[in-house]
Amino acid sequence: MSEAWSLHPQLDNDAVGIGDLPLSRLLLSKDANYPWLILVPRRAGAVEIIDLDSDDRASLMTEIGQVCEALKDVTGCDKLNVAALGNQVPQLHVHIIARRNGDAAWPRPVWGAAPALEYDAAELEAFMGAIRRRTGFG
Amino acid sequence: MSEAWSLHPQLDNDAVGIGDLPLSRLLLSKDANYPWLILVPRRAGAVEIIDLDSDDRASLMTEIGQVCEALKDVTGCDKLNVAALGNQVPQLHVHIIARRNGDAAWPRPVWGAAPALEYDAAELEAFMGAIRRRTGFG
Repeated sequence: MSEAWSLHPQLDNDAVGIGDLPLSRLLLSKDANYPWLILVPRRAGAVEIIDLDSDDRASLMTEIGQVCEALKDVTGCDKLNVAALGNQVPQLHVHIIARRNGDAAWPRPVWGAAPALEYDAAELEAFMGAIRRRTGFG
Repeated sequence: MSEAWSLHPQLDNDAVGIGDLPLSRLLLSKDANYPWLILVPRRAGAVEIIDLDSDDRASLMTEIGQVCEALKDVTGCDKLNVAALGNQVPQLHVHIIARRNGDAAWPRPVWGAAPALEYDAAELEAFMGAIRRRTGFG
């Protein structure tokens, strides 16, 4: 049975869209505490990485690498955090977060560590533009 | 300059070895709160996924899939959590954790959520044996 993919409303609410890579939609989290991107494979019903077939798993790793490289180049971060958790939002999504020694959660994981911080509009535009250019959308 | 890979002492302390897959050493966390496996690519100096070349990244995804399937089959968990964080232990390692609605951290991430719980020796042996058989070491 075929079912159309659509972005989970919680992800749609918490992040803004950057563009579609071959497999995944690339989002930018609205939480200004951390430069935080999210990859969402456009596969209806996928909850776990192992719900993807082997070609899609390979594409996901390619896109994780591409987004990690872009985020590291743009931010000069101390560490990348890459995670597929999905305990609260079941749609498969992979967080890729630039961490800095001394950020709002360091050295703990970011989830639940600090209230979300609103972006300054110009700062968001600049960050999104830099990521767009670096990932081929700009 | 070539440098021999060795397991980070903190990982060696917190987990027990199950065996070596083509790329990664597979470990089992000693925290009995959650069925928790860890993949550590045997590449000296690797800190980020993007420190791996593209062949190794592909192997890592293959091994993540293999371990996710084994852990899901063995535990019948509600959700898998897959994460490469490394804010405290810099050696690249990927957590693969079986989560259950109502476990010690649910629905939060496991890190820092509850004090580590010691395994009963027989329970550890049974879990390790099941994972070994399911990942081809048994």
